[in-house]
Amino acid sequence: MSASSVIPSTVNADLQKERDGASFNSEEFAAWWAGGAEQLKFKRGIKEYMYKDVDLAALNQVDYLSHEDMCEFAVKNSINVAKKLRQLQAERNPGGNEYWPTLYDSPELWGLHKVGNPFTVMFVMVIHALKDQCTPEQYEEFGKRVERFEVSVAYAQTELGHGTYLRGLETRADYDRETDEFVLNTPSITAYKWWPGGLGQCSNYSIVMAQLYIDGELKGPHLFYVQVREEDTHEPRPGVHIGEIGKKMGFLAVNNGFLGMKNVRIPRTRMLMRHAKVNRDGTYVKSPADALTYFAMVRTRCIIARNMSLILAVAATIGTRYSAVRRQSPIDPKLPEPQILDHVTQQLKVIPEIAASLAYRNACDYLLELFDATSRDKDQGRYERLPELHSLSCALKVLCSSDAAAGIERLRLACGGHGYLTSANLGNIYVNATAACTYEGENTVLLLQIGRFLMKSWRAAQSGAPLAPTVSYLAEVQRNPEFGVWTGSWENLVKAMQFAAANKTRIAFNNLAKRLVNGQSEEVAANQTGIELTQAAELHGRAFVFHSFLTEVTGAKSKKRSSALNRVLEQLLELYLVNVTLNNMNNILRVVALTDADLNKLQSRLETALTKLRPDAVAIVDGFDFADEQLNSTLGSYDGNAYERIFDAAMSAPLNQKSVPKSFHEHLGPFMKSNL
Amino acid sequence: MSASSVIPSTVNADLQKERDGASFNSEEFAAWWAGGAEQLKFKRGIKEYMYKDVDLAALNQVDYLSHEDMCEFAVKNSINVAKKLRQLQAERNPGGNEYWPTLYDSPELWGLHKVGNPFTVMFVMVIHALKDQCTPEQYEEFGKRVERFEVSVAYAQTELGHGTYLRGLETRADYDRETDEFVLNTPSITAYKWWPGGLGQCSNYSIVMAQLYIDGELKGPHLFYVQVREEDTHEPRPGVHIGEIGKKMGFLAVNNGFLGMKNVRIPRTRMLMRHAKVNRDGTYVKSPADALTYFAMVRTRCIIARNMSLILAVAATIGTRYSAVRRQSPIDPKLPEPQILDHVTQQLKVIPEIAASLAYRNACDYLLELFDATSRDKDQGRYERLPELHSLSCALKVLCSSDAAAGIERLRLACGGHGYLTSANLGNIYVNATAACTYEGENTVLLLQIGRFLMKSWRAAQSGAPLAPTVSYLAEVQRNPEFGVWTGSWENLVKAMQFAAANKTRIAFNNLAKRLVNGQSEEVAANQTGIELTQAAELHGRAFVFHSFLTEVTGAKSKKRSSALNRVLEQLLELYLVNVTLNNMNNILRVVALTDADLNKLQSRLETALTKLRPDAVAIVDGFDFADEQLNSTLGSYDGNAYERIFDAAMSAPLNQKSVPKSFHEHLGPFMKSNL
Repeated sequence: MSASSVIPSTVNADLQKERDGASFNSEEFAAWWAGGAEQLKFKRGIKEYMYKDVDLAALNQVDYLSHEDMCEFAVKNSINVAKKLRQLQAERNPGGNEYWPTLYDSPELWGLHKVGNPFTVMFVMVIHALKDQCTPEQYEEFGKRVERFEVSVAYAQTELGHGTYLRGLETRADYDRETDEFVLNTPSITAYKWWPGGLGQCSNYSIVMAQLYIDGELKGPHLFYVQVREEDTHEPRPGVHIGEIGKKMGFLAVNNGFLGMKNVRIPRTRMLMRHAKVNRDGTYVKSPADALTYFAMVRTRCIIARNMSLILAVAATIGTRYSAVRRQSPIDPKLPEPQILDHVTQQLKVIPEIAASLAYRNACDYLLELFDATSRDKDQGRYERLPELHSLSCALKVLCSSDAAAGIERLRLACGGHGYLTSANLGNIYVNATAACTYEGENTVLLLQIGRFLMKSWRAAQSGAPLAPTVSYLAEVQRNPEFGVWTGSWENLVKAMQFAAANKTRIAFNNLAKRLVNGQSEEVAANQTGIELTQAAELHGRAFVFHSFLTEVTGAKSKKRSSALNRVLEQLLELYLVNVTLNNMNNILRVVALTDADLNKLQSRLETALTKLRPDAVAIVDGFDFADEQLNSTLGSYDGNAYERIFDAAMSAPLNQKSVPKSFHEHLGPFMKSNL
Repeated sequence: MSASSVIPSTVNADLQKERDGASFNSEEFAAWWAGGAEQLKFKRGIKEYMYKDVDLAALNQVDYLSHEDMCEFAVKNSINVAKKLRQLQAERNPGGNEYWPTLYDSPELWGLHKVGNPFTVMFVMVIHALKDQCTPEQYEEFGKRVERFEVSVAYAQTELGHGTYLRGLETRADYDRETDEFVLNTPSITAYKWWPGGLGQCSNYSIVMAQLYIDGELKGPHLFYVQVREEDTHEPRPGVHIGEIGKKMGFLAVNNGFLGMKNVRIPRTRMLMRHAKVNRDGTYVKSPADALTYFAMVRTRCIIARNMSLILAVAATIGTRYSAVRRQSPIDPKLPEPQILDHVTQQLKVIPEIAASLAYRNACDYLLELFDATSRDKDQGRYERLPELHSLSCALKVLCSSDAAAGIERLRLACGGHGYLTSANLGNIYVNATAACTYEGENTVLLLQIGRFLMKSWRAAQSGAPLAPTVSYLAEVQRNPEFGVWTGSWENLVKAMQFAAANKTRIAFNNLAKRLVNGQSEEVAANQTGIELTQAAELHGRAFVFHSFLTEVTGAKSKKRSSALNRVLEQLLELYLVNVTLNNMNNILRVVALTDADLNKLQSRLETALTKLRPDAVAIVDGFDFADEQLNSTLGSYDGNAYERIFDAAMSAPLNQKSVPKSFHEHLGPFMKSNL
């Protein structure tokens, strides 16, 4: 048994051939994808600095640890990453924040947090929540401490028995006027805080959402800043029952925790009082602007959506490179087994996911522009575009998470058995992506919210009221309900998807109306129409992605790109539009009269697009510019030495360090002997 | 922190209410599902015996172990299960085999093999392969030893660089006439045997598939029986490089292994010579019947398909019970939060999976009948039905594995955040199910094989040749290509799916023909038509499932069931047919002229079916009769005390056994202090 590496220092010949044969410059793609040459350089600089002394093989040994050891590792590792990033900040721009903490959980550093970072929530959510919800004095008192990482803080909202519906939360905070304190209690098992990242063993404070009671009167859910462990000993504070919720499918070491409280007392000034307030005498002052709370959630959803488009790109990179390296199943039995990327069925599993990453990343960029614009509006007290932004951020959060998860799993399956290996990293990527279908707004709940927005918009359109730009097509379809001629042009495909969305909106609207006429309450009718509402919402999201991708590829920005790059982007657009159109034909055929010949032509366009993109597939994923450390995949490394890496990874498995395992001596050997 | 259980001894009230309100008798369902009252009693008896002293909470601690400890545990555990099952056999029917080894890996015992059984392959495949491929003398010499478990044997076929395409295997066995031995070699890294279950550290012998060479002349892949470790010391034999392939997404402790060989010599009589032979003088005798080899694979696929329908039923049981227990998101804000099963969108996630389990289990039963009939034919030298059986077993293996995997994931997501907990067991069920999409014939490869069978059948039908019964509808569609009137009856839905399958077959056939006319070789043309071939294959499989489910529910067997049970089965049939029809409307609309009113009616039938099945959902999954040990899910236990079980499981997590973790003292504490 040899421990020395078998990985050659050369690039796999098949992969090199792909790169040599590409029709465009990967570097130009990379600069475009990164948002400009400067951005690309910046990102590469970060990765070079942060990954320079990372030994992936050593890091990956963490997969073999016990849960406890894995969690201990993650604490140590996450702190090291924080130190290193602060160091980088100090070296390059002391006093700034573009490295620390901004990049702590950025896609560039995903490769460093192999089994999760228990402190992610603190820097992605807690700090922002404190900024939004603390008075200046409060932020000075404890917000700044979080920034300096003097304390470790979780965000405890979800309870064992309660999730989405905040008004259903049971944890209570009663104001005690005598002592000027809140008394926090967990009245039942279902009221235990459950799931907060880092809460288990890694936090000594937590933001806690609890029902505020004053003189026994309910004031609804509010946020409190609660010390849960002693700063010096880390022992749980009196009345605090805290720990981790146990093992999960993924996010193995982010230390999701539980929290039960029995008469835990905090000073009145530890309620976050920027908006709502409780005065010393117990008088309650309502928040003047509820929208401010939910605006922070919108931001989080935008980031999740964008991250999902990137995680899909990671998986697509792995799947594409492996498909160029793996040879299997002859097309012509007289010839050697081809690269599996030559099988058309394989092309259909891999290349559309590349296109989907682009389409979604691009749609999210448009969403973030809308977010910034709406954010500026909001700061000036203008809230008109909030509902649209809310709805669109929900739509992209849903589509990006669910389509990324499904796409990643397709890519994993496209890698055959080896895709099932932990060292391929696709399984880990999958469990991370699929979690996003549930956290920060469960996808079906969000789709139903979008559905409600579509109902309102449809009604508004009927009454001639103005519509938000991203739903204005509903009014157009109302004015002109005939689709007209099918041409199959890109614009026509976008229009078809809009018609499908509008038509499903119409059907849902009519069924809802019918149910109301039949005497159902609005709530019951909405529930009964739930399936069509979610379908309309999904189609609406797809129509937006279609439109924004078309705009990006064919619009003014194309003038800044070379014709070679534009050609590739146009082919990706063609593939994406045709493939998603075919997959949604059940809804499109209800509003667009496509002939059999039209459908055959679309199928043929799908096959042609795959054929055209096939020679550029590797160069495109190279353009995503993921470092090997970000991919961390035996199947997807830049050099394409997949087999050697799988082999190497296997050799380092702990069981392979001994020639005979203990279980032989203790169990298998004696058992077989007894059967002789 | 308390270690005592919080689980009440009563059944959750919401769940009890569901049971009390059911319209039929769960026990009658259970007997029907089990294949009769006697079978139900037999299965319950097994489970009672085998699970009586199993402590699930203790067993589940294995989730927290290191990989190495988990693997060691699995060896010990699997041997204990074998001992217990042999004991049961000895007590109830000495000398028989209905308990041992038949049930070693049966669905009834899934709950015992929490992290996998490294000896499964030995009893599911190796013994059958030896029976099929050994001469009587060989079986006497080493086959019987396997039966007695005196040795532990793996089945090594797949290589690091080679899977499906057996002729591409590189491992070679050269006959050495001088010593009357075969010399086995692994000529490259890609030739390493890779993946065989149990091979790593748990086997001392292996069946090895290798290219047979005599005097340097290739005779193709053959099977050899090779000793890989010493029987007494378990040390690898000279020239043998053996170990495990490292961690995977699932099947964590089945000890998938690798094997490299350098001049490993075995006696000539260790080639399995029932069919092909090598004589002492080196003359080679070809196998007279290749079909016999692939018949064993057909059997394995039938079993996989059936197991997948059952694993989907397991997940549906968990999802349904939890949906009755969990209350979330008001329908009417004035009322308490409802059971989530009252949300129509939740019903759509859960109830169709119950129906799909039934439809698939039922289709697999028909398949197994065909298998038995074909098996009897084969024993009498009649091979006519083999291609049909092969094709149908592929179709059901593909559909059952891919739809079970997708359905399980939908069910897991339907359980919200808690579905992500390891203690929910849905994640584990998922990774087991999705693996079946790849092993024993990768799904796309199988679909392409079915596609070829459909092309042959279509051509045969055109020439008026007789067709196998399960494809006879192709000839009917050729004779009468107009669908005729849409009535929406169940028979009409079956016909619509057959028309969709036939139409896609026709399209693929014509495109293939066109490509041949245009000068493409048959192989290249088949590759280019791959997408449509796989689509036709999938639709063909669906048409079979439709037809067999309709036959089961409405056919002669219905007379043996009560009208209450028949009513429920009819509703499940209605739901299944309508839902799958709607999901395949993109293909159906190409051949059946459904109006908008027809489509709205189907949607309304879908909603009605969900409403009607809603009150019986819990009673139906009760009728699947899974023991809590089989489900092993905090969310799905019979008593419905989900929250208390989640709570209990969390309390037993290792990190919760100390109030302060080591990492605080070593890393987090000093770090935070340094930031003060």
